[in-house]
Amino acid sequence: MTNPVLAEVLRGEEVESRHRGSLVVCDAAGGVVLAVGDVEGRVFPRSAVKSIQALPLVESGAADAFGFTNKELALACASHNGEPEHAARAQSMLEKAGLGEADLECGTHWPSRQNTALDLAKGGKHPNQLHNNCSGKHSGFLCTCAHQHIAPRGYVTAEHRLQEIVRDAMESVTGAKHDAAHRGIDGCSIPTYAVPLKSLARGFARMATGEGLEPHRAAAARRLFAACMAEPFFVAGTDRADTAIMRAGEGRVMVKIGAEGVYCGAVPELGLGFALKCEDGASRAAEAIVARLLVILMRGDEAFAERFEQIANPIFTNWNGLVVGGVRTPEAFA
Amino acid sequence: MTNPVLAEVLRGEEVESRHRGSLVVCDAAGGVVLAVGDVEGRVFPRSAVKSIQALPLVESGAADAFGFTNKELALACASHNGEPEHAARAQSMLEKAGLGEADLECGTHWPSRQNTALDLAKGGKHPNQLHNNCSGKHSGFLCTCAHQHIAPRGYVTAEHRLQEIVRDAMESVTGAKHDAAHRGIDGCSIPTYAVPLKSLARGFARMATGEGLEPHRAAAARRLFAACMAEPFFVAGTDRADTAIMRAGEGRVMVKIGAEGVYCGAVPELGLGFALKCEDGASRAAEAIVARLLVILMRGDEAFAERFEQIANPIFTNWNGLVVGGVRTPEAFA
Repeated sequence: MTNPVLAEVLRGEEVESRHRGSLVVCDAAGGVVLAVGDVEGRVFPRSAVKSIQALPLVESGAADAFGFTNKELALACASHNGEPEHAARAQSMLEKAGLGEADLECGTHWPSRQNTALDLAKGGKHPNQLHNNCSGKHSGFLCTCAHQHIAPRGYVTAEHRLQEIVRDAMESVTGAKHDAAHRGIDGCSIPTYAVPLKSLARGFARMATGEGLEPHRAAAARRLFAACMAEPFFVAGTDRADTAIMRAGEGRVMVKIGAEGVYCGAVPELGLGFALKCEDGASRAAEAIVARLLVILMRGDEAFAERFEQIANPIFTNWNGLVVGGVRTPEAFA
Repeated sequence: MTNPVLAEVLRGEEVESRHRGSLVVCDAAGGVVLAVGDVEGRVFPRSAVKSIQALPLVESGAADAFGFTNKELALACASHNGEPEHAARAQSMLEKAGLGEADLECGTHWPSRQNTALDLAKGGKHPNQLHNNCSGKHSGFLCTCAHQHIAPRGYVTAEHRLQEIVRDAMESVTGAKHDAAHRGIDGCSIPTYAVPLKSLARGFARMATGEGLEPHRAAAARRLFAACMAEPFFVAGTDRADTAIMRAGEGRVMVKIGAEGVYCGAVPELGLGFALKCEDGASRAAEAIVARLLVILMRGDEAFAERFEQIANPIFTNWNGLVVGGVRTPEAFA
């Protein structure tokens, strides 16, 4: 099955590049509302499922024991820019559990946001693991270990008790088997499992509605989604699509990007979850497509649509500030 | 026409993302040796044709008048990292023509190479137009203007005399009309024209062999290609594919990447030029595909193939240095 073109990159009036992909919108029972391209094929959700991976942090009571607010919960679901507020908040999460940066096993990289990296360098500083875009998720993992009296060392490996608990949560929410045959290693060293795209959409519908989940899990899911929507800066940061989309959504939309062109999300008031994969892995296309999908799902709400138009059809300027092109997404996904 | 998958991105054993594209190999007469996907469709070559755009610098006598060596000629054809050697060489080119950084109209961006940008920031410095990846090309343009007594101001606009001369060179070499209907603005503000992919491959065969070009132009083309192959660091820089490929090619291969997944090149000893476009614009795929194509074109030369294997099938490691995946290109393009 050949996936259709879901986003075109324009230079002047000419199409310069094309992004193909698949997307699916489901209700919590798995009923398909919209399907485009190959939605049964397996994709690695990567960071798009951090909110599901954060369920044990809330369900175990760790989040309450450490007094975590929406900001910490949002950061546990985040792929953040490594801005000072992100790194500081991850550090304070760890400190509340009697742990520190050295306990993280996500590895170090310069902050994803160029200006933040340059500011660090200007100050003569080097990044540490707190600047890793996944440090909030890893801090949540470590806090869960601490609260559950699980020895944290090696918590990133598939065989560690923490990853078993996380995998159980992902299997129960998505309904998809997470087996070693479809396991890869993520950028931050934890396992990532390729699962059918449709199972991710259904999982997000369940997270948003609580339908099909035990009450304790449903409450944890609602709390995590509410935290992300309330504190979108802590899910991503300055000039990032997740943050811009959830701000524009004003508490009605949960979204999360994953590496390699994945986007998952939900519109709780519609009872719907969705998942999409740009087949070539491009974030620029996934971001535009998810914004377009939201406009389509909320059809009729003009004020909502207007706030998303710029994300669905972004404009590119060059180093002299001239408009040189942009991204175009279709009016409808047929 | 649906372009085939030319590169797969792996995570573990699973295909995570796919890159489609088209490629074509031609001789100087336009005879097609290999064609995959849509090779008649128009693509913006972007920076891949800087060597053709540098012809007036040599043909006008400016390069000789200013005493330019292979390093300056390579830099005039470059999309460089903005490393200190690149910025300094661009500055010295301008100074020889009595001009300076302020005469450039390419705009400013932080050096493309992260470590170079961070080093600049650590030193409390800011980038200027010399760090723009196109500063060598623009310095070449300005030197041509100076030598030809063309007022340089506005030299980036399609209507400026310099751009007319550049456009004439591109039309004569590629054999393709460069018209306003298919014109876009490049990142560095000069015009870029969408032309059939096949015309780019033929143009590179002509540049490499001189066939079909006037003797004066043929000599200039050979000199520019020789300069790039002799000084590949000045064409791109540290850890860049153009530099790695031309080093591995040991003077037998000319290549140049363009933005949005374009690669052009030639193997002079075979009398062949080639052009490829990854339809989604991904450099990581274009780089792997061009290395694979070179191995295929040089089939039978095992030592050559061995040096290119790592570029054709790169391995990805994560922040902890674990191997997590890589890019796979096909053994043959069918």
